[in-house]
Amino acid sequence: MKIAILGGDGFCGWPTALHLSNLGHDVVIVDNLSRRRIDEELGAESLTPIAPIEERVAAWREVSGGKSLEFVNIDVAQDYDRLLAFLRDEGIESMVHFAEQRAAPYSMKNSTTKRYTVDNNMNATNNVLTAIVESGRDIHLVHLGTMGVYGYGTAGMKIPEGYLDIQVTAREDEFGNEVEPYQVEQQILYPTNPGSVYHLTKVLDQHLFAYYAKNDRLRITDLHQGIVWGTNTAETAMDERLINRFDYDGDYGTVLNRFLMQAAVGYPLTVHGTGGQTRAFIHIQDTVRCIQIAIENPPAAGERVKIFNQMTETHRVRDLAQLLARIADAKVELVPNPRNEAAENELHVVNETFLDLGLNPTKLEEGLLLEVTDIARKYKDRADLSKVPATSLWTKHQHEGVPPSIAAGDSPAAPVDAPAGAPAAAPAG
Amino acid sequence: MKIAILGGDGFCGWPTALHLSNLGHDVVIVDNLSRRRIDEELGAESLTPIAPIEERVAAWREVSGGKSLEFVNIDVAQDYDRLLAFLRDEGIESMVHFAEQRAAPYSMKNSTTKRYTVDNNMNATNNVLTAIVESGRDIHLVHLGTMGVYGYGTAGMKIPEGYLDIQVTAREDEFGNEVEPYQVEQQILYPTNPGSVYHLTKVLDQHLFAYYAKNDRLRITDLHQGIVWGTNTAETAMDERLINRFDYDGDYGTVLNRFLMQAAVGYPLTVHGTGGQTRAFIHIQDTVRCIQIAIENPPAAGERVKIFNQMTETHRVRDLAQLLARIADAKVELVPNPRNEAAENELHVVNETFLDLGLNPTKLEEGLLLEVTDIARKYKDRADLSKVPATSLWTKHQHEGVPPSIAAGDSPAAPVDAPAGAPAAAPAG
Repeated sequence: MKIAILGGDGFCGWPTALHLSNLGHDVVIVDNLSRRRIDEELGAESLTPIAPIEERVAAWREVSGGKSLEFVNIDVAQDYDRLLAFLRDEGIESMVHFAEQRAAPYSMKNSTTKRYTVDNNMNATNNVLTAIVESGRDIHLVHLGTMGVYGYGTAGMKIPEGYLDIQVTAREDEFGNEVEPYQVEQQILYPTNPGSVYHLTKVLDQHLFAYYAKNDRLRITDLHQGIVWGTNTAETAMDERLINRFDYDGDYGTVLNRFLMQAAVGYPLTVHGTGGQTRAFIHIQDTVRCIQIAIENPPAAGERVKIFNQMTETHRVRDLAQLLARIADAKVELVPNPRNEAAENELHVVNETFLDLGLNPTKLEEGLLLEVTDIARKYKDRADLSKVPATSLWTKHQHEGVPPSIAAGDSPAAPVDAPAGAPAAAPAG
Repeated sequence: MKIAILGGDGFCGWPTALHLSNLGHDVVIVDNLSRRRIDEELGAESLTPIAPIEERVAAWREVSGGKSLEFVNIDVAQDYDRLLAFLRDEGIESMVHFAEQRAAPYSMKNSTTKRYTVDNNMNATNNVLTAIVESGRDIHLVHLGTMGVYGYGTAGMKIPEGYLDIQVTAREDEFGNEVEPYQVEQQILYPTNPGSVYHLTKVLDQHLFAYYAKNDRLRITDLHQGIVWGTNTAETAMDERLINRFDYDGDYGTVLNRFLMQAAVGYPLTVHGTGGQTRAFIHIQDTVRCIQIAIENPPAAGERVKIFNQMTETHRVRDLAQLLARIADAKVELVPNPRNEAAENELHVVNETFLDLGLNPTKLEEGLLLEVTDIARKYKDRADLSKVPATSLWTKHQHEGVPPSIAAGDSPAAPVDAPAGAPAAAPAG
């Protein structure tokens, strides 16, 4: 199958491209290299050394014995005409869409990053959808969304896969006359509660998908992904030139990667407050497998958007810290929480679709030590520890004691104290 | 009060600016004159002769005896820095946001107009919200949305004002254990079902508003408006240089305006199929009064978005045609419907907020004859009747017998046959 990976130079896109190429598909990476540009803007860098895209692609062809992988530089948010020509000329059959700014803290830094995130993500998604329609090709689109669109689940209710069964009390007949109240059953898109501008763009994506699936009968799968952990997959581990990103900076690093860095440099894992926030996780190896499964199980034309929850485990932040402390011989330190936020939350998520379709999850408990030894310790001399703390203020009201909104998804929401030598974490008050 | 009217040169924006100026407010029109540019692009023109914006503003100052009205040319979707400086320097207290591409058929013409509509409307709204946050000013934002976000109402249920009470059946306790099913009550944003890319952008707007109201405590009122009819208000009727737009072309004209043109030129009012589609309406005089009421009743900071349904009557298309035929001595002709669409729909809408706050609606029955005599007949020699039919194909599947989506709101969804001499209406099959 001919598959385009939009955003195929990024943390999830690159291992997905290699995984699908390894399975024998014809894979084309479409990327404008924006993630490398943002690294430069932030003065940050992946802990692992990332080869230039041309070198990565050439290395894969060499290491894999000539498997199919190409790269084209198109900004899908800006260059619609080239995107359309690409879809028409290359015979693309499936497309995986990672081509969005994906960090919540980056989206909250200032008005420029807020506006970039909305402008880039909305135009990327709408251009992709419009181009599929205009191409006239029956292309299955697989999109990477986030568990963060859900916000916190309803107390005492598992978060379903995208759609919620509701009952509504009707009090009129079809002519508008009052009658005895009766209940109407409906199934709707799960009501959203995004915690950042980044998460908001994934909410907007959902509505674009619902519309184009209905109006133009596009075949779309939307994957609501948890926090991705781990660095390498079977393919990226085959050669150091293929190694995947490891982001540990305050904007793009997740809570788990920052714990890993703290363990690697021998600094206590500092947990704010009770560490009671619960988050959903998935290993990068399972991410690429899920995308393969999604590609192999497209919806029919005219069917509504398929939504899967792409996560395998939920953990409390304090449990994660303790797990890591145990396997990496580090210490956990509970420190007062400078933020005014909900101390504890439960999170239960339905993820049966992928399990039923054969996903066999990598467990945090089993994979975490490898991350400490093979990645964090191995490359720790490349680290700039001053980049670890998050410095984005979620809202101007944070210093006034109004709680910031926290999403259930992939935002590195749990505050982590900085290692020694680094400036203190953000909150102003 | 100092009030900015974004999009104050358009069909609703211009009379709103005059109405608020007449009440004694300091009004500044912010507009990039895009509506005039699109007229040129379409080779169409308002039936009524529209003066250049500078002449309009000068005429208002003269006619009103020096009331406050200014104009600045800013593209709020493109020129963020000037928008921010404007908010900071001018002491703006309230802002009315009409600065969006507002025609459903135009949004469906081709990939360029789809992409323009999404790009312009999303960036305009996000820029406005981001600029309010960055300005640090407590500005109340009043936005013009559409009844079309709702799609058709649930059978037997009045469409509420923005929020829907639902019940959800929970089957787990807070620890994820199965328990006896119990019902949880919630209130959510009414689930949306937009019928065009234009309506879709108003759905996306809703989510931007919900987010910024929650995260940044912005004060926002979203008005879900029906199809606006009528041309003049008390202010625009004071001098011909102040006259408002009357769009009758297939892209920007609504079904009612096209009936008015048919009546004015003595052509039968042609209704496709049974004409059973029900739509919501409001007179332009009531629109400007509603906006005044919305400005005078802002939500508190930290309160959720206030949503009002801004409509006063619902009518079936065939009843409208018959009403107009009676008062203007025209004929109605039922012709076969070339489209495969739902022939009949009911529409019941809650609009109590504005009625409770003192709105006294203009009735279609009473105002329609004035439109025929004072506008359509008076200016009919300016009309280019070849522009009346809509030529946008809603979806590539329309010719395959798949019904196009029809919104309940301001889309001129009911097909109207062309007057003699004009090409036949669009549908291909």
